[in-house]
Amino acid sequence: MTKLIDLSHNIINDMPVHPYDDSVRLYQDKFLKADKYNNFRLEIGMHAGTHIDTPMHLTNREIFIDEIALDTFIGKGCLLDVREENVIAYKEEYSDIVSENDIVLLYTNHSDKYGTEEYYTKHPIIDKELANFFIEKKIKMLGIDIPSPDRYPFEVHKMFFNHNILIIENMTNLSELLHIKKFEIIAFPLKIRAEASMVRVIAKI
Amino acid sequence: MTKLIDLSHNIINDMPVHPYDDSVRLYQDKFLKADKYNNFRLEIGMHAGTHIDTPMHLTNREIFIDEIALDTFIGKGCLLDVREENVIAYKEEYSDIVSENDIVLLYTNHSDKYGTEEYYTKHPIIDKELANFFIEKKIKMLGIDIPSPDRYPFEVHKMFFNHNILIIENMTNLSELLHIKKFEIIAFPLKIRAEASMVRVIAKI
Repeated sequence: MTKLIDLSHNIINDMPVHPYDDSVRLYQDKFLKADKYNNFRLEIGMHAGTHIDTPMHLTNREIFIDEIALDTFIGKGCLLDVREENVIAYKEEYSDIVSENDIVLLYTNHSDKYGTEEYYTKHPIIDKELANFFIEKKIKMLGIDIPSPDRYPFEVHKMFFNHNILIIENMTNLSELLHIKKFEIIAFPLKIRAEASMVRVIAKI
Repeated sequence: MTKLIDLSHNIINDMPVHPYDDSVRLYQDKFLKADKYNNFRLEIGMHAGTHIDTPMHLTNREIFIDEIALDTFIGKGCLLDVREENVIAYKEEYSDIVSENDIVLLYTNHSDKYGTEEYYTKHPIIDKELANFFIEKKIKMLGIDIPSPDRYPFEVHKMFFNHNILIIENMTNLSELLHIKKFEIIAFPLKIRAEASMVRVIAKI
């Protein structure tokens, strides 16, 4: 029996965004009674909520997210429990857990703070040794329940981008995968001519 | 070997929209050189490009698309070749082809006209007998490469909505599924508090 778990935050009006980013507007602009149909309109930056970063976000690479191969966005998932680590470090045991082409998810539980100021200002970061491990393992994508794997000047971001590893940021509900041995991640972004995209991330068990 | 086929139109600046709808803006608002990162911002109505309609679009039903069960958006696909039909009618052979819970795709090839005025003004429509057949078969979703299954007053839309059948509109590339016996459709919308959503629709073969 297939079970589907939603790993995405909700897109709502005035949702939390990174301090760098402009706010999100989601509003109804057509109404059944007056216009004969309901319609909502959205104004959003590509890094609000659960989204995928591509190299173009922080480099001069000119490949838009709609040009990236579809099989990048679907594949075997792998969850690492990294709660209580402010600097998420490499551990030897990861060698046996992580395989080439995995979509690796780091469960920090920081998504509990989503909606507070602390969520964007005091999140865990990823150690470079761990980043290098993921690069050497040739993982497909890294998914995190924090807004960024690092802080300015975003060296870890760039390490991943230099090796074409995309990053899914602001994930949630990763606790639900804690004791699941085998699952698939489905995270197709919009087919959009941009350097990143909102995404619905689903785990299929 | 898994093959993935993209059935979605591109989201670009000033893309084609229904004559009722406001235009789409997609623009870069942050630039690597000046801002230290690239960022795009999108302003879009929920019915631009490839998207999923829910009952709330044309009825007083107050269930937003982010509240709809995930398994609605993934499942066995079924393609019907309905090219050259201005009014897409029921055919007896469909009884053997369409099964309960299928995501049924109608291939009209009208997507060839996407980007012309004719695309929105002269598209094929679905006969009520065929709509009733889909309702009786209890299909999960209907996917079409036209902007709407009907015209004002949208009776076919409402028939589907009264039976909780969602509609994927403005699909493309359906020709690639013509001789494929077995495929799955993956079409998770954004987790958005709206009556419809842009969607990346993928066929997995």
